[in-house]
Amino acid sequence: MRTPIIGVMGAGEPSPRHLALARELGREIAKAGWILLTGGRDLGVMDAASAGAKEIAGSFTLGILPEASSRVSSHVDVAVFTDLGNARNNINVLTSDVVVACGVEGPGTASEVALALKSGKPVVLLAADEAAQRFFQGMAPGRIQVATNISEVIETVRTTLAGRV
Amino acid sequence: MRTPIIGVMGAGEPSPRHLALARELGREIAKAGWILLTGGRDLGVMDAASAGAKEIAGSFTLGILPEASSRVSSHVDVAVFTDLGNARNNINVLTSDVVVACGVEGPGTASEVALALKSGKPVVLLAADEAAQRFFQGMAPGRIQVATNISEVIETVRTTLAGRV
Amino acid sequence: MRTPIIGVMGAGEPSPRHLALARELGREIAKAGWILLTGGRDLGVMDAASAGAKEIAGSFTLGILPEASSRVSSHVDVAVFTDLGNARNNINVLTSDVVVACGVEGPGTASEVALALKSGKPVVLLAADEAAQRFFQGMAPGRIQVATNISEVIETVRTTLAGRV
Amino acid sequence: MRTPIIGVMGAGEPSPRHLALARELGREIAKAGWILLTGGRDLGVMDAASAGAKEIAGSFTLGILPEASSRVSSHVDVAVFTDLGNARNNINVLTSDVVVACGVEGPGTASEVALALKSGKPVVLLAADEAAQRFFQGMAPGRIQVATNISEVIETVRTTLAGRV
Repeated sequence: MRTPIIGVMGAGEPSPRHLALARELGREIAKAGWILLTGGRDLGVMDAASAGAKEIAGSFTLGILPEASSRVSSHVDVAVFTDLGNARNNINVLTSDVVVACGVEGPGTASEVALALKSGKPVVLLAADEAAQRFFQGMAPGRIQVATNISEVIETVRTTLAGRV
Repeated sequence: MRTPIIGVMGAGEPSPRHLALARELGREIAKAGWILLTGGRDLGVMDAASAGAKEIAGSFTLGILPEASSRVSSHVDVAVFTDLGNARNNINVLTSDVVVACGVEGPGTASEVALALKSGKPVVLLAADEAAQRFFQGMAPGRIQVATNISEVIETVRTTLAGRV
Repeated sequence: MRTPIIGVMGAGEPSPRHLALARELGREIAKAGWILLTGGRDLGVMDAASAGAKEIAGSFTLGILPEASSRVSSHVDVAVFTDLGNARNNINVLTSDVVVACGVEGPGTASEVALALKSGKPVVLLAADEAAQRFFQGMAPGRIQVATNISEVIETVRTTLAGRV
Repeated sequence: MRTPIIGVMGAGEPSPRHLALARELGREIAKAGWILLTGGRDLGVMDAASAGAKEIAGSFTLGILPEASSRVSSHVDVAVFTDLGNARNNINVLTSDVVVACGVEGPGTASEVALALKSGKPVVLLAADEAAQRFFQGMAPGRIQVATNISEVIETVRTTLAGRV
């Protein structure tokens, strides 16, 4: 049985609030013993979540990069280079057991939430604004969970993973 | 100078209203002398838009398929087989000069609108519900046009293409 | 029934001989009424084959580009932008009814021949050196045709297309 | 500094000799402290190399799958699901610091060797037949190493990794 992979998606240039949440989220995912997946770059939510995870001994961070080389977060343990541009967003989603969007401020994250729903992946929206919540919950009632803090995310992920067995 | 390519995105199982709009939209795109791009499958908005275009003599329809073979709309002139699954949505968007979403009812279409915004492509939302309009316009103010009928779409596309020169 | 698509693969910096063959090959594919598919860039075998095809009235040339924009051969009618880097080679192959390698001098073309065999596509090697012929024919006996001039290619393609029905 | 990733490519239905070599190769890669990358499926060279690596305590195996889910080798620690079909071969190559082909018996492996050369990745051919050696060495003189046993592979990889610094 492979270790669950939790994907954390978010903007390359997030708000300070989402950046702080990303770091805490990465830390708690690592504490739970799960693998953290991000887009792997050295900025924004990707970098912050990976940095948070690497504060915990024994953590593992996976980065799925849009380029063929370079610009990897120093907190990523294994970097997968896709050279697919934004098409790599679909790999982020397919490889994650649960997808957590830390803010849906930008179109990249929005595409990942949409692709996750398209593939039937469980999605948690953390600190999403009201327009994003309404849009995505209207699209997939009951398949999107909304969380306002990190404990809610971790609890939702735990329940979702348990429900798969 | 290559002929402009207008991408029409929409659900595989759309509402009757969006299906009728797709057919009319395909027809008007062909009348304008543009190439119609769709996801190429033999159902929903893809099939209806292609069918509408092929009512016009001299029209050209391009389909970008998610599979490695099969299930192409009979109204598609050239079928590009990607075998990329939903990652092909990014190709739909990059290949189109303007992206028109005929309803944003489903997650596939939502991912295409998001990927278009991510790549800086002009987007027109046709007959989108209010939640979709609010979400995407909030994300990219001034870069999304909203249209309620086919003439508005065609007029917006024409203006957008002219503005590129 | 869609018009057959013949893919012509070859180096970006081919030998003068392969460049001349590519132009003639493009011309004859167009004369036969088939669509020409290439990698779409403005150099090498891609550009020469497309230029040859566009000497013929009513011809149609499709280019499948590795980038998200730019650098298209001026002889390409429809450009599909993939932003997939070399992963787009698999689309070239899947979209072609028959794959013709005009020289297998470079690794890009070799990857396309290999991917075509992997997907069960018919392959014609034109003016391939002896090492390439031996390698690929040993790998897929009876599924690779070898041609030394353009008439042989066209005859082989015609027979292959007829055999599909 | 991330741990080096060594990609082992080979057939899904290899000869008994290549299967045995794959297992030994996986084991020695793990002993050297490197990460093993394979195509991730539960058969052939992929499965055998991963099984070999997992005989070693502290080893890490990464699988890059062509599908959207399922059929993962039980010896893979982290499975990346691409849903790209054979286009995922390019990710195998880009993510590896050195690519080792354990036999070039099939077209999938041949495409990976070619894509590796195209991207400038170091390649080692292990137990390749003479036609494959001649073809690929003629294509990229000096950039392909040939090995006849596992110690030669490990020594070549070690030298190549040292040369990067």
